[in-house]
Formats: sequence, C-alpha cells, structure tokens
Amino acid sequence: MSIDIKRVIELLNNAEDVLILTHKNPDGDTLGCGVALCRVLRAQGKRANVINGDVIPKRYDYLFEGLEPQDFEPKYIIAVDVADNKLLGDKLKAIYGDKVDLCIDHHGTNVEYAKELFLNSSDGAAALTLFRIFKEMGVNITPDIATALYTGLSTDTGCFRYSNASSESYRVGAELIDLGADNANINVLMFETKPMEYFKLLSETLNGMRTFCDGKVVVLKVTNEMFARTGATPDQCDAIAAMSRQVEGVLCGVTMKEKPNGGFKFSLRTHEPLDASKLCGAFGGGGHKRAAGCDAPALEEEKILSQLISNIEKELS
Amino acid sequence: MSIDIKRVIELLNNAEDVLILTHKNPDGDTLGCGVALCRVLRAQGKRANVINGDVIPKRYDYLFEGLEPQDFEPKYIIAVDVADNKLLGDKLKAIYGDKVDLCIDHHGTNVEYAKELFLNSSDGAAALTLFRIFKEMGVNITPDIATALYTGLSTDTGCFRYSNASSESYRVGAELIDLGADNANINVLMFETKPMEYFKLLSETLNGMRTFCDGKVVVLKVTNEMFARTGATPDQCDAIAAMSRQVEGVLCGVTMKEKPNGGFKFSLRTHEPLDASKLCGAFGGGGHKRAAGCDAPALEEEKILSQLISNIEKELS
Repeated sequence: MSIDIKRVIELLNNAEDVLILTHKNPDGDTLGCGVALCRVLRAQGKRANVINGDVIPKRYDYLFEGLEPQDFEPKYIIAVDVADNKLLGDKLKAIYGDKVDLCIDHHGTNVEYAKELFLNSSDGAAALTLFRIFKEMGVNITPDIATALYTGLSTDTGCFRYSNASSESYRVGAELIDLGADNANINVLMFETKPMEYFKLLSETLNGMRTFCDGKVVVLKVTNEMFARTGATPDQCDAIAAMSRQVEGVLCGVTMKEKPNGGFKFSLRTHEPLDASKLCGAFGGGGHKRAAGCDAPALEEEKILSQLISNIEKELS
Repeated sequence: MSIDIKRVIELLNNAEDVLILTHKNPDGDTLGCGVALCRVLRAQGKRANVINGDVIPKRYDYLFEGLEPQDFEPKYIIAVDVADNKLLGDKLKAIYGDKVDLCIDHHGTNVEYAKELFLNSSDGAAALTLFRIFKEMGVNITPDIATALYTGLSTDTGCFRYSNASSESYRVGAELIDLGADNANINVLMFETKPMEYFKLLSETLNGMRTFCDGKVVVLKVTNEMFARTGATPDQCDAIAAMSRQVEGVLCGVTMKEKPNGGFKFSLRTHEPLDASKLCGAFGGGGHKRAAGCDAPALEEEKILSQLISNIEKELS
C-alpha cells in the first residue's frame, strides 16, 4: 500500500525495536539511508540496527562509526532503497522477505512487497526522499546523519553529474554540507579511490579495445582469465562498461564480460540515436534506452557480436 | 587596484565596445565567464567580443552558439579568470598585456596586472564570482548565460566533487539549473567524453605501471614514443597523473612525462602524510602539498626516480 508523508512520519514515530534492511551489493544510497535512519531512531531513544546480506565494502566504514549493533528482538522491519525483496539477498529474503512493514524508496520499479510503501520515484536518490521525511519530522540532523545522507545523494547522482541530479538535489546537497557533511572527503572515498586490481583489469581491457563502424562502436572484452590474472572482481567491470561510452564519437560502447560458468554478458551503453534496449532485445535481453544488456552462450559471443554490429550498422545507415 | 562589487557594476554598466580576454589553454571556467559576460553586455545593447589566444577545443562549441564576432575597435578591455597577464599567451599579451582595464578573478595568486581588479579568492570558480555580480546588477540570466556560468562552476569544482565546492556553489548550481542550464548534457561533454587517443595512452601507461614501498607508491611513465604511437597530446597526460593517486592504498602517485625535447617532467600527487612540494623540492622543483612537480634531465630520470623513492621510504619509516 502506498502511503503519504504524514503516514510515514506516524509510522516512524510509533516504531520500536527497529531493524533496517538494505539491498545486496550495497551502494552508498542504501547504506547511507540505513545508517541515517538508524541514527535518527536511536536519537529518539529507540533501539535500532541496520543490516545487509552481503559483506559491506571497507570504504563505507566511516558511515558506521560509533554505530555498534544493539541486542534486541526486532518488532518493526523497514527496508530502505530496496525495490524488490529479492534484492535483500537470499539469506535476508528467507527471514524477512514477507515481513517488511515499511519500505522507503525512490525506484519507480518498486514491486510493492512491503506492507506500506513510501515512494518518490522522481528523486535521484532515496537519501533525498529520506531527507524530506526528516525535515517534515523536525529531526535534528547531526553531522553524522548529514554525512550518511550526503553519501547516498552523491553516489546515486554520480556526484551531481547525471541527469537525475535535479536542482533540488543540489539544494539538499548544500544544506547537508552546511549541516556538517564532509563532502570533499566523502567524494574522494566514493569516486577517487579504486583498488589496484581495477587498474590492472582496465589496462588489460583497454589493451584489447576494438572499434567498428568508423569508430562509432567500441568493444571491450573481459574474460575470466583476465579476472584471474588481475585479481579484479566482476563488479569492477561496471565502471569499465560505463567508460566504453566516454570515447569521443562513440555512439555504442559494448562490454563483453565472461560469466563465472562460461558464456558472456553483453552490456551496451549508447548515445542518441541508438536504443540499447532495442539492440539487446534482438538477443533476448533488455533494459533502458541508454543502458541495456543481453546474454551470449559460450563460444557464440563473437558470432553474436558480429550480428549486433551489423544491426547497429543498419540503424545508423 | 582592488575594487568592491559596487565599483565593478559601475564599470560594467559604463563600459562600451568591450573586448573580453580569457586565459590560454582555455578551460570551462574562463570560457564560460567570457561567454556569459559577453552575452550580458550584448543584451544591454553594447558591442562585445570574447577571444582566446589559443585554438578553443571543439567540445566548448556549444557555449558560443549564436555568438558571432562583432566588428568594432575595442574601447574597454576585461580579463576573466586570468590571474597573470602572462596567461593571456604571447600573442594577446603583446597587444593587451598592459591595457587590461578590469580583471574579474578568483585566484588568490592574481598578480594585479589590471587597472582595476575584482577578486574573490574564496570562490571555487570565477563563474561564482561573476554570478554574484550579475545578481547584484539585476541581470536577466537567460538559459544560455546560465549554461555558460554552470559550465564554469562545474568544471572548476570537478563537478562539485573537489574541496573547493562550497555549499554556496551547490546553491548557485541549483539556481543555474532552474534558470535553464542543461546540467546533464554539459557534464557529459565536460567529464564523460575523452578522445580515443587518451584511452590508448591510458592503456599503454597502465600497462607499464610500477609499484614501490609495498604498493604505497605508484609510478607511471609516459614517453614521446607513446605519444607518437597513440596520437595523444601531452595535456591528456594530466588526467593520467590525477589517476595515479586514485589507486587504493597509494600515498604517492608519480607520473613521469617525457618532454618534447627530451628529459622528463615528474608530477607527484600525494595523500597525507607525504608532502609533494617537499619531495619535489629535493630535485629543484616545487608546488603544493598534494600536487607538485620537478624536472629530470635526459637519461637521468630512472636515477632520480630511485632517489625519490628512497626519500619517500625515509619519510614513511
């Protein structure tokens, strides 16, 4: 059931012994929101914990400073920035998947698995949605709460770079800095620090870069051998896929990532006029206009690439 | 002579037939300010042009749309974001170096070459300084003026990522978006588009990456052979130098760039506790705590690197 801001404030004010769930493969927005909400509830004199089904990467440690887990039996379950209970991960889904009392989210694709849902799909980050709730509640936003919310807002908008960075997100960013968010250091940690393995993988990948259609298509291929040799993890490939579209004059960046058990996942990033979703649809995949994906069975990846490039040629002619 | 905002407005309101100068190796801030000021003056019914001593890179073309040069003899010369008349470049300095009537700037290092100087050194971008002037003047900020000012603000703050991105810069960013600056597309052009040659150089450079001091020092070497082979230009090396410090655990990133006529320029980027300026000082160079440089004569670059690394080892022990 979708609820309004009055109702979500009533629910938060009445909640006791709260467990806050965040999504798997955690990012700055889900963790920032979880931590901010946990700190607000504790400041109200309540017991609250925030958990995640995965191991939380060390670079988010600063969010959790002084936030030791409390020992209690949860009476109220809240999910933040979790569009689908599948995204809790298998372990947390098995325990809490059908017990989420309240979900606070900004994904238009939310599947409404929670008993009550507060959703604002025009927000670039759930942190923006949560900030608005806190303001309406009259919460005292301390520097560590501001830090957590700024982290969510900045990471989900690519540090205010993407098209989802509205003027409101800039204004809230300003307010959070004034409330004590250390924006410069947060952004160094979130955007300017990458593991050595990433750079090794990047080097190998760029080494094998291929271009087609007079430089309008760039193809990067990442194999399991490359992951093994560099020690990089498959998620580090996401930043590489985003990079494929950054080459000047490129209308379609294709990243072919070998899957652990063989076969390839194609990730397409496009500029106008190419529709990534349509291009991937021809091979049983899908996604958005500017970013989409499809699968290629083992040993067929080069054949599928050829077909894809021939389809792109047709689109461009 | 340093002047206040009342005086700068008086000067701008009285100026006629204005030539606006921007700095060599132009960036988004100097060009954005030049274009914004030119559009404001023309909207006041005056003649005005904005020029640069170098060829302006094509990616800034959108700033100049509809801003055809006008034919007139300049009566009033304004420099924007130019800290020193040397930075006009040889050609413009020879003609206008001692004739600049007004300089509007944000560099604390401004050498006060202009007859009158309006400086706000706490601003992260000259575009912020200029925006404040326009507001006080009651200028009608049209979408193309907002676009020019947003370009300056965003590029000089690393898209609101660096420590010079104050909360005021976020608030002004919000206002410019509301006034019609197309932030998403501007940031794609300024931050998410790089020439193919850059990626080729990056690939070659990362290929030869060396680490020292248990991964606390990363060394990247870029030779003239690599520039020739990839077609990349030496200025594209700056982004690579910045990248050297982004490797997790690295306290000092060293980029060795071969100079066109031989010998190497070392660029150091450091994290606490290493002082780049002190490290480079030992070899006759200098700069800031976090970014500094020094020169190495031809054929001595590896010897100097060894000494530098041994100095870093001492600092870290």
